[in-house]
Amino acid sequence: MTSKYFEDYEVGAWRESLGRTVTETDIVIHAGQSGDFYPHHMDAEWCKDQEFKQRVAHGTLVFAMVVGLSAAEVNPEAFTYGYDRLRFVRPVFIGDTLRARVTLKEKRDSPKRADYGIVVEAVEGVNQRRETVVACEHLLLVKRRGGVR
Amino acid sequence: MTSKYFEDYEVGAWRESLGRTVTETDIVIHAGQSGDFYPHHMDAEWCKDQEFKQRVAHGTLVFAMVVGLSAAEVNPEAFTYGYDRLRFVRPVFIGDTLRARVTLKEKRDSPKRADYGIVVEAVEGVNQRRETVVACEHLLLVKRRGGVR
Amino acid sequence: MTSKYFEDYEVGAWRESLGRTVTETDIVIHAGQSGDFYPHHMDAEWCKDQEFKQRVAHGTLVFAMVVGLSAAEVNPEAFTYGYDRLRFVRPVFIGDTLRARVTLKEKRDSPKRADYGIVVEAVEGVNQRRETVVACEHLLLVKRRGGVR
Amino acid sequence: MTSKYFEDYEVGAWRESLGRTVTETDIVIHAGQSGDFYPHHMDAEWCKDQEFKQRVAHGTLVFAMVVGLSAAEVNPEAFTYGYDRLRFVRPVFIGDTLRARVTLKEKRDSPKRADYGIVVEAVEGVNQRRETVVACEHLLLVKRRGGVR
Amino acid sequence: MTSKYFEDYEVGAWRESLGRTVTETDIVIHAGQSGDFYPHHMDAEWCKDQEFKQRVAHGTLVFAMVVGLSAAEVNPEAFTYGYDRLRFVRPVFIGDTLRARVTLKEKRDSPKRADYGIVVEAVEGVNQRRETVVACEHLLLVKRRGGVR
Amino acid sequence: MTSKYFEDYEVGAWRESLGRTVTETDIVIHAGQSGDFYPHHMDAEWCKDQEFKQRVAHGTLVFAMVVGLSAAEVNPEAFTYGYDRLRFVRPVFIGDTLRARVTLKEKRDSPKRADYGIVVEAVEGVNQRRETVVACEHLLLVKRRGGVR
Repeated sequence: MTSKYFEDYEVGAWRESLGRTVTETDIVIHAGQSGDFYPHHMDAEWCKDQEFKQRVAHGTLVFAMVVGLSAAEVNPEAFTYGYDRLRFVRPVFIGDTLRARVTLKEKRDSPKRADYGIVVEAVEGVNQRRETVVACEHLLLVKRRGGVR
Repeated sequence: MTSKYFEDYEVGAWRESLGRTVTETDIVIHAGQSGDFYPHHMDAEWCKDQEFKQRVAHGTLVFAMVVGLSAAEVNPEAFTYGYDRLRFVRPVFIGDTLRARVTLKEKRDSPKRADYGIVVEAVEGVNQRRETVVACEHLLLVKRRGGVR
Repeated sequence: MTSKYFEDYEVGAWRESLGRTVTETDIVIHAGQSGDFYPHHMDAEWCKDQEFKQRVAHGTLVFAMVVGLSAAEVNPEAFTYGYDRLRFVRPVFIGDTLRARVTLKEKRDSPKRADYGIVVEAVEGVNQRRETVVACEHLLLVKRRGGVR
Repeated sequence: MTSKYFEDYEVGAWRESLGRTVTETDIVIHAGQSGDFYPHHMDAEWCKDQEFKQRVAHGTLVFAMVVGLSAAEVNPEAFTYGYDRLRFVRPVFIGDTLRARVTLKEKRDSPKRADYGIVVEAVEGVNQRRETVVACEHLLLVKRRGGVR
Repeated sequence: MTSKYFEDYEVGAWRESLGRTVTETDIVIHAGQSGDFYPHHMDAEWCKDQEFKQRVAHGTLVFAMVVGLSAAEVNPEAFTYGYDRLRFVRPVFIGDTLRARVTLKEKRDSPKRADYGIVVEAVEGVNQRRETVVACEHLLLVKRRGGVR
Repeated sequence: MTSKYFEDYEVGAWRESLGRTVTETDIVIHAGQSGDFYPHHMDAEWCKDQEFKQRVAHGTLVFAMVVGLSAAEVNPEAFTYGYDRLRFVRPVFIGDTLRARVTLKEKRDSPKRADYGIVVEAVEGVNQRRETVVACEHLLLVKRRGGVR
């Protein structure tokens, strides 16, 4: 586990994760985790008459998988405090394969903590056709090397 | 399943969900779902030397559980297209019990689809001490009764 | 959570649940829950030579799913004390979609507790072809409004 | 896999299974399987104010676990067609250890199928204090050796 | 639970288990158990360009399933202390059905414990085409009847 | 994903993984995966009278977790073909925290494939007291840079 400080993050840095296929298993387990048994995810018959003709993955599942894929090495000096502009852009179906793409978009001061800075990562989940299915901004609070700026 | 149209949503409407206790099982299963095996969630020994002295639930787990709790009756005229200002306000530990509180905060036109309106729900997850642990704005696209405004 | 007393239940009342598709995942997880790894549920090769030519869901899984689907709002004045005449009428296969249909069949005195009455619900699980796959009588003990009759 | 025919079953035969401890994990996974997230099983805070002061296992979980424990060797000549008089006699808590006890109670003709007979097993689930927690009658349809009686 | 002593094991004894089909669910759950999300197991798109054209089961999953299938009755006088020459001979795909075949290969003295002997079982996992997919030697330490030889 | 050839592996190279706490959840899920419901893992009451006084993790679970922890970056030029001398040195209990330690022990020619070499990693699982709980030799077949030696 290596420390990486606010000063070490570079705007424009980019990474792409390995891929992971979304399975029926993931959806069934996520229904159990979230308690969301809506027919959009659980009722293949009902879905046949809907716009997409098939079950779609829960938004919170797609988000959790893409965030999991996007994770970099553990950095003990950083923690997530939130996400902005989370958008579900396209439906994700059973059998789709997701990757996470992360661009370091911005660094800014923290209004509350002088010894930390805010790092904003633009996170995108893309499917096997390179279409964006989910997008958000990941907000990290990262310690400054000097302690206080 | 009853249809509820944009016109039927009332700003200020409020609901609170049942409670659900976050268990070690939820965290272990979420690690498997998300692929996030960070020591903050998985290594009880390492956590002893950290700020919170114990394992914390994944942000994406807390979010999925609170969104699941917050769900109202299935409305075939509405779908989620995103979340804004998702913030992890306090850590969630094994044994904490969460509830979701939802306030209908705002209704606005959709810039892209004239036959739909946007409903914004302020969603909060609170623990057994009534402290907010997570907060976000839930964005729903809901069909207008008239079809087009 | 709203209290509903014995007097509030009406014989003949009827409800139908949303649907839920039975998946291979449900069967695999249920084998782990119940410890039942019989080839009827777990061995697709062996099943090819059997009457149904394919794996069938465990009876206890079908029962648990239909009971789960059949659940009404939480009523703090009622609890389940048993089931009568549970019958597995037709096999349930991977991909079948189940719904629960519940009819309030009977109200009777409790032989043991004067302050409670017995409510009997006829519960049926039906598949996507509207065939009954499981049937049983659900026995609820429900508090009387007056306390004692 | 050895065939055992209707004639081979002996009234009065008795067996007891190994034990299995009911864990919080079992309850959390069963909530996901059944879709039953009632606070009796999921909300440790709410349970503190209820009769039992703690979460109780779902009836359908206890039933599935005891049925699983009670299973004998696979018999290709027999299948379950139902259960009678299923009763939840005592609550099951996290940490309780269950065993199944099975007594072959009765053999009778099948009203519908002359080449099969009905075997009735009295199944009991007992906890670590040897108290019965669940009881039912397991109905098996078993092929007659001669084919037709 | 019946005691079986070192003297009771016979070299050459042979048994074959029931079968079990490897499902996508098993692979997804094993990824969560082991933390191994390699694309060989999780990324169906990537696998299309690899030698086997599809996802393969984790070696540790195949091993755990075959060891589980191979288990004999519980013997309180025996415990596993290891495995030798574990080899993954052929890939296992989703939909393959495995059986375990066990031959008691050898009995030998324990160099460390005079009151125990070592029993070596040759364990093989075979698929539905009777091809060996995994092989190993299972080492059991089993109490001697006399206590000390 | 970066290619690493046989020539790139250095004898003596060493790495240690992050830690992971073994939970009751892991054991319950592993029982379901492996079908091994032995009382050593599942019956807390029975265990009270055994040598260790508590449930122990399955050997195949400990092995799978340590192998998962030990995994290096994906190397498309390498694959596991087996393990030697797998030994369960100490019991693993609920709440123990495991790490994997890997030492590159040996490189040798493959007797069957001239274009591949064999890399042997000594893998150890250690608990929070730095005691070895499991040890084995991991056998990798790795492509030679030149293709054929």
